[in-house]
Amino acid sequence: MPSPQPKNAFYAQSGGVTSVINASAAALIETARQYPQQIGTLYAGKNGILGALREELIDTGAESDETIALLKSTPGGAFGSCRYKLKSLEDNRAEYERLIEVFKAHNIGYFFYNGGNDSADTCLKVSQIAEKMGYPLQAIHVPKTVDNDLPITDCCPGFGSVAKYVAVSTMEAGADVASMAETSTKVFILEVMGRHAGWIAAAGGLANPDIIIFPEVPFEQGKFLAAVQKAVDTKGHCIVVASEGAQDAEGNFLADAGTVDAFGHKQLGGVAPALAGMVRNELGLKYHWALADYLQRSARHLASQTDLDHALAVGKAAVEYAVAGKNAVMPAIIRTSDSPYQWEVQEAPLSKIANVEKMLPAEYIREDGYGVTEACNTYMHALVAGEAASQWRDGLPVHARIQGKLAEKKLADWGK
Amino acid sequence: MPSPQPKNAFYAQSGGVTSVINASAAALIETARQYPQQIGTLYAGKNGILGALREELIDTGAESDETIALLKSTPGGAFGSCRYKLKSLEDNRAEYERLIEVFKAHNIGYFFYNGGNDSADTCLKVSQIAEKMGYPLQAIHVPKTVDNDLPITDCCPGFGSVAKYVAVSTMEAGADVASMAETSTKVFILEVMGRHAGWIAAAGGLANPDIIIFPEVPFEQGKFLAAVQKAVDTKGHCIVVASEGAQDAEGNFLADAGTVDAFGHKQLGGVAPALAGMVRNELGLKYHWALADYLQRSARHLASQTDLDHALAVGKAAVEYAVAGKNAVMPAIIRTSDSPYQWEVQEAPLSKIANVEKMLPAEYIREDGYGVTEACNTYMHALVAGEAASQWRDGLPVHARIQGKLAEKKLADWGK
Repeated sequence: MPSPQPKNAFYAQSGGVTSVINASAAALIETARQYPQQIGTLYAGKNGILGALREELIDTGAESDETIALLKSTPGGAFGSCRYKLKSLEDNRAEYERLIEVFKAHNIGYFFYNGGNDSADTCLKVSQIAEKMGYPLQAIHVPKTVDNDLPITDCCPGFGSVAKYVAVSTMEAGADVASMAETSTKVFILEVMGRHAGWIAAAGGLANPDIIIFPEVPFEQGKFLAAVQKAVDTKGHCIVVASEGAQDAEGNFLADAGTVDAFGHKQLGGVAPALAGMVRNELGLKYHWALADYLQRSARHLASQTDLDHALAVGKAAVEYAVAGKNAVMPAIIRTSDSPYQWEVQEAPLSKIANVEKMLPAEYIREDGYGVTEACNTYMHALVAGEAASQWRDGLPVHARIQGKLAEKKLADWGK
Repeated sequence: MPSPQPKNAFYAQSGGVTSVINASAAALIETARQYPQQIGTLYAGKNGILGALREELIDTGAESDETIALLKSTPGGAFGSCRYKLKSLEDNRAEYERLIEVFKAHNIGYFFYNGGNDSADTCLKVSQIAEKMGYPLQAIHVPKTVDNDLPITDCCPGFGSVAKYVAVSTMEAGADVASMAETSTKVFILEVMGRHAGWIAAAGGLANPDIIIFPEVPFEQGKFLAAVQKAVDTKGHCIVVASEGAQDAEGNFLADAGTVDAFGHKQLGGVAPALAGMVRNELGLKYHWALADYLQRSARHLASQTDLDHALAVGKAAVEYAVAGKNAVMPAIIRTSDSPYQWEVQEAPLSKIANVEKMLPAEYIREDGYGVTEACNTYMHALVAGEAASQWRDGLPVHARIQGKLAEKKLADWGK
């Protein structure tokens, strides 16, 4: 009896990249290669879902085992990611239909979407429209986001490494400032990502800074400055970790404070400089500030081994779910023990994930609003544990470079 | 025949710290412990030279071998550093006399000063005044500065690790931006240190960014924006490494915060947002920027092994010079071969080092002013080679904490 013909698969990276999203891709590709009876060619979207819409399908089969393995220590999104949100089915049914058309043209039966909240939603919708159109498709979401805001899963691959970056950087800069404070810098402010939730700022708690500014806690200048002055008076200096999402009680972002540089340009993206300005103007203390921006989410050299393990595990599980016939699910990371930290991968339905944002629990924020609780540190410690090895040559990291061979187009150009 | 009584020693850290200055301290302390016949107690100045003036002398003999060894992977300045420039002998003879008085009171015959240009000058002056006052003192300068601007020595301990940080961070963020550029960020700007010279910015050349902004090359907005647009048109995105010392032809700093430090240096910080503002206003391109600030000089987790080896070697050599009876000298790192990289430590007279600033050679800057030459990359590659191990526990680096036991005071309080 002949076995059924294998179906091809499509994988895409979505939204902001992380230092371990390529590790998920590598595990997914390696696992798919172990199921030649079920999975034929695994295509990756060039620049994410746009690659499907534009029919720009990278043939991952053309990439060597060595290149795929090297993806595990390569930051960025090797196939290209994108910020492109598919609209609702009602508003743009044509876009979903185009996706299915491309899948059909290339005999794609598996859709793996590697992203955060938006892409979980898209993944579910693609699954639904395929069903409505009678096209057999299994859509599996692979979690990834430094924002750590997906529900059900205990954490999101990508977050643990940012958490480690923020904690380590705060410790290191803290040692620097402590040694200089007698005659020089007394206040150091590190601005970190997290527009909507303080997960990343909370990770700074591992370094025990004097002040953490969360988006969840309305910012009050007077209270902040008093806390800075108290730290300086008590120990000679003050270390601040500030979320880019810091805002006052009215919801005004501090980053929009409207400071202007020497050229009269509005200073951009700057909670740290806004706070530094207050410290200078109101307290007259010498300050320094850093804004880590993309460095924090691309610092593969400082990735957490736990985070890398998670990223690999969800990539592998996604393929296993696919070959087991599952649809509209996501591998979630479930914590089964804090100490020692233990975890496992469990299947979660996308219907319970799409459009649900997991916020930083109130019990992770210290009562004064400027620090974290022991429960928060326990949560974070597990995620930053272990140092993921990188490959180095002549003092620099070696990153994978994919060939990016595109499949031959079979359809007319996408109208957009 | 009784051997001569050992003399005590004094060590101080000066100016901005580096991720390997404590390694020099550790090597110096460990080596001093091997010469009990010549060196008695090795004191470290609490907060640098202020510790001598205030007679706050940390007894390093009270620190365990384990703590001293752990200093090799501890960022910051473990004994405290300071920005405190002794004035000229004419202007403040009393300050120098106070130093000698403290040295005399504690039987200090060796003065080790671990710093950059200013401290080389101070070290020489202290040596001179001791001689004039008839006090037997050997003053040895131990090189350290991320600015890499000391003469004679091929490089300065501390610089190689910053160079590695900048090169690796630029590569990583570059991978991030490349994967997002199709729909999102097209221009990324990393601001790095280097007030007077482009050494640190030049290290970014190892990552092959599209544009490097050097303080040595007068900034022209039109030319800069044309180069940005060209990179975006050609490859889809543009990576910029910008020195904090960037300035126009009239010497106006792009980032002029208007505050000054203890030396009267203007405090800078904000070239990246200034450049980002131009990109937004004139080109309308989506941008991101990062300002690494202290993170770059305290990132011990990413230190260069070569840099660490240099830092250890100069600490060890300083003590060997001292016990060999030398005075007013500095161990310099001399490159004897580029490929393979080979180096040795040689003695250099402080008279040839004090007040001489080594600038980035013009032949390291590419003709268009926006990149580096092959010669520059060859120079830099040697310095970033190797990954210096750190100690980790539960995912975080383990840093040394000194007890800081102070010697009993023997003099009246310092007037200042």
